Amino acid sequence: MTSAPDAAPGPGAKGALTARATDFPRWYQDVVARAELADNGPVRGTMVIRPWGYGIWERLQAALDTRIKEAGADNAYFPLFIPEAYLRLEAEHVEGFSPELAVVTQAGGKELEEPVVVRPTSETVINSYFAKWIQSHRDLPLLINQWANVVRWELRPRLFLRTSEFLWQEGHTAHATRTEARDYALKILSDVYLSTMQGVAAVPVITGHKTVRERFAGAIRTWTCEGMMGDGKALQMGTSHELGQNFAKAFGIQFSDELGAQQYAWQTSWGVSTRLIGAIVMAHGDDFGLRLPPAIAPVEVVVLVVRDDEGVHRAAQSLVADLVAAGHRVRLDDRTDTGFGRRSVAWELKGVPARIEVGPRDLAEGNVTMVTRHDRIKTTVPLGGAVVEVTAALGGTAAALWAEAEAARAARSTAVTTVAEALEAGAQGFATLAWSAVGPEGEDRLAKEAITVRCLQGPDGGLAEDGDDEDSLVAVVGRSY
Amino acid sequence: MTSAPDAAPGPGAKGALTARATDFPRWYQDVVARAELADNGPVRGTMVIRPWGYGIWERLQAALDTRIKEAGADNAYFPLFIPEAYLRLEAEHVEGFSPELAVVTQAGGKELEEPVVVRPTSETVINSYFAKWIQSHRDLPLLINQWANVVRWELRPRLFLRTSEFLWQEGHTAHATRTEARDYALKILSDVYLSTMQGVAAVPVITGHKTVRERFAGAIRTWTCEGMMGDGKALQMGTSHELGQNFAKAFGIQFSDELGAQQYAWQTSWGVSTRLIGAIVMAHGDDFGLRLPPAIAPVEVVVLVVRDDEGVHRAAQSLVADLVAAGHRVRLDDRTDTGFGRRSVAWELKGVPARIEVGPRDLAEGNVTMVTRHDRIKTTVPLGGAVVEVTAALGGTAAALWAEAEAARAARSTAVTTVAEALEAGAQGFATLAWSAVGPEGEDRLAKEAITVRCLQGPDGGLAEDGDDEDSLVAVVGRSY
Repeated sequence: MTSAPDAAPGPGAKGALTARATDFPRWYQDVVARAELADNGPVRGTMVIRPWGYGIWERLQAALDTRIKEAGADNAYFPLFIPEAYLRLEAEHVEGFSPELAVVTQAGGKELEEPVVVRPTSETVINSYFAKWIQSHRDLPLLINQWANVVRWELRPRLFLRTSEFLWQEGHTAHATRTEARDYALKILSDVYLSTMQGVAAVPVITGHKTVRERFAGAIRTWTCEGMMGDGKALQMGTSHELGQNFAKAFGIQFSDELGAQQYAWQTSWGVSTRLIGAIVMAHGDDFGLRLPPAIAPVEVVVLVVRDDEGVHRAAQSLVADLVAAGHRVRLDDRTDTGFGRRSVAWELKGVPARIEVGPRDLAEGNVTMVTRHDRIKTTVPLGGAVVEVTAALGGTAAALWAEAEAARAARSTAVTTVAEALEAGAQGFATLAWSAVGPEGEDRLAKEAITVRCLQGPDGGLAEDGDDEDSLVAVVGRSY
Repeated sequence: MTSAPDAAPGPGAKGALTARATDFPRWYQDVVARAELADNGPVRGTMVIRPWGYGIWERLQAALDTRIKEAGADNAYFPLFIPEAYLRLEAEHVEGFSPELAVVTQAGGKELEEPVVVRPTSETVINSYFAKWIQSHRDLPLLINQWANVVRWELRPRLFLRTSEFLWQEGHTAHATRTEARDYALKILSDVYLSTMQGVAAVPVITGHKTVRERFAGAIRTWTCEGMMGDGKALQMGTSHELGQNFAKAFGIQFSDELGAQQYAWQTSWGVSTRLIGAIVMAHGDDFGLRLPPAIAPVEVVVLVVRDDEGVHRAAQSLVADLVAAGHRVRLDDRTDTGFGRRSVAWELKGVPARIEVGPRDLAEGNVTMVTRHDRIKTTVPLGGAVVEVTAALGGTAAALWAEAEAARAARSTAVTTVAEALEAGAQGFATLAWSAVGPEGEDRLAKEAITVRCLQGPDGGLAEDGDDEDSLVAVVGRSY
């Protein structure tokens, strides 16, 4: 038996979220706070990631880490503190990061003779070690990843999206040839990032490369993953950079090739951060809160005791045991000293993919109520069949979320031909047009309306190939976070 | 067929490690460098954890994290930067940490109005959130853990043992009663720390509590895990603190109890760090390098191609596949452009529990050579039986390492009755004597010879009970790292 979802609470309803259509940024703030994902830290721009938010991060981390290892990279850890002088070695890099640096000037009760920078990214310190570790072509490729916190001082912080400190992984590699480096940067883009964002988080993503204006400070090419959020804005969800030989030359990363000649290494770096959590909130959330694909939900199923009753408690406990035995992550909510409605709303806010409500009335007829979060549909199911029903429902959740996000993106994506049209369409979603119709001057014009080229793609809409004519490229433009 | 281990290389042997008996600190440095565990960072006291060292850490982390979750704690993440004022709220705490703080005074291109401290530990910032999150007895217990980097400026750094930045986990909990907090601190000590240190890392550990002189700044009782290193010195491997209501009062962490009365929470905090890697090096290492229990070895078995030969390559590859299928972490070393001897020594240095050498001579007779790292015994085994032999050998490695460490500790542990005797015995290992024979004055006398009370135990050698008379306690004293 299936019934229609409850209506969304009206704007006056007690404790209701701001509706997305009313004020999307406010809705985002509300969800992050009320789903207990994160709090602002005491120092401006910093963030406390609460257990529910961190639980999502742990699952994303595990998915990424497995794929990073499959791509052959080893984890390592480099220091938080970097000598100021290191940052100055690569010219574009220091220019890109200087305004955002946090600097330690006192330590151990004294003024430091040389202030140290809190890493905004680790290119400089890691490459100083690569120069030491790499001597011969036998030492290549060198494939290193690190999970770490980094600091970029933010004047307009926003939880998960833009914070003064964030958690991320940053990969750094060195290769013998430009082709090998490019292939590796693209392997990470597809086999690690796209695979996790789409295959695990169920967020549709477009890929391409950044314009010179938008690329990473020190890179020769920045590949990017761009998702569309619920308000039509783009979010850069991850980037993979070809660094060319810029850092190799700045840090002296040389190897002797098979013929004994000294060569500079070709490098990549790539990173995704806790920003992914913000992407998931904004791509999947609805007016009732978060919606999570089961693969990254800290809890896949919550079993709620509707009201105190011995039989109900017993049935709920035994159902939890059966669900755990079936391999699900399950939480029992038997806090009957808090009202049932309040608890339901809280789990809905947190985006738990499935709820099972066990109450005396249903139970008298041998039933329980199952509610799937993504469509908010309530179904009466027999207690004995609940595990099978929940397993089936969870199996379809990610695809349903994906389809909805994909449809929303398609509805807000427009092919245009001029910058004037792109200005209009890009304010609502993604506009696609020939890069030759934009160019650096068009980029300036768009930028005045806070619209940027999110990425460039090849003539067929795929990634650009090395030989592609600049004029054959397609630009995807939009507003962004 | 089994043959005796090779003799240790003499002091003049090319590339030999310093012998442990000759210069233990130097041996330690050599092993950390040559097994590629870690390097010094560019900023004094910081550390680069290389993939081999980080691989060990990842396995320790996984073992700890599983146990922490089983103990009911959730992971979260709190900011790196703490307002200076927070640290001043708990008097003993600020006194304990002030000399070691690193302070950010500039950020985003400006002088900060209020400098921020880089966390030396997170008690202050976490407790400021506990005050917000805890209102009612229903919010208790609150059990939080975080994996993070912390900074304590070190003037005499030593890789893994004492570095200006290190990685750790820090748990922070709040409970309704003192007993509950005490029980939880002890649960962490035994079910998380002892279980990992002894059950996973195979390092024998004694437990007890610290004297007032040695306890954590702000705690009412510090429980500790102390291991004995290869030179007879103690290493504090992890601590679990009862904080009483000290931080609760400083930060206003209050809850309304069942009767509606306001109460201060009772708290614990507990941590272990990358120092554990140093403990494993120093407890298990020998004159040939590191020795790792399989559970924490990044690679359990390395299969070495002795010499280029088509049959050898094929046999080695197929053996690797069989070992992987049997569930082992395996590395194939077919870098025949590097001498076989050099590669063997490198794997031995890295402490890989088992090596299998596949060479044309053995293979012609259908055999391979298996070398177990802990006893350096070489055995000729039939190729077809190699998986079974290796599995059996790995199954016995941890117990053998444990037994050796345990025997070494027993040989260096002495029961004494006076401080004078403790001074002598404590210089070589652990001396045990009645705490009533030491007392705070005895502690001062010992401290002049760099000997400290590592822990106090109950009259039966177990953990002290709440009701135990101070005079019935037993002190374990020794030198320490």
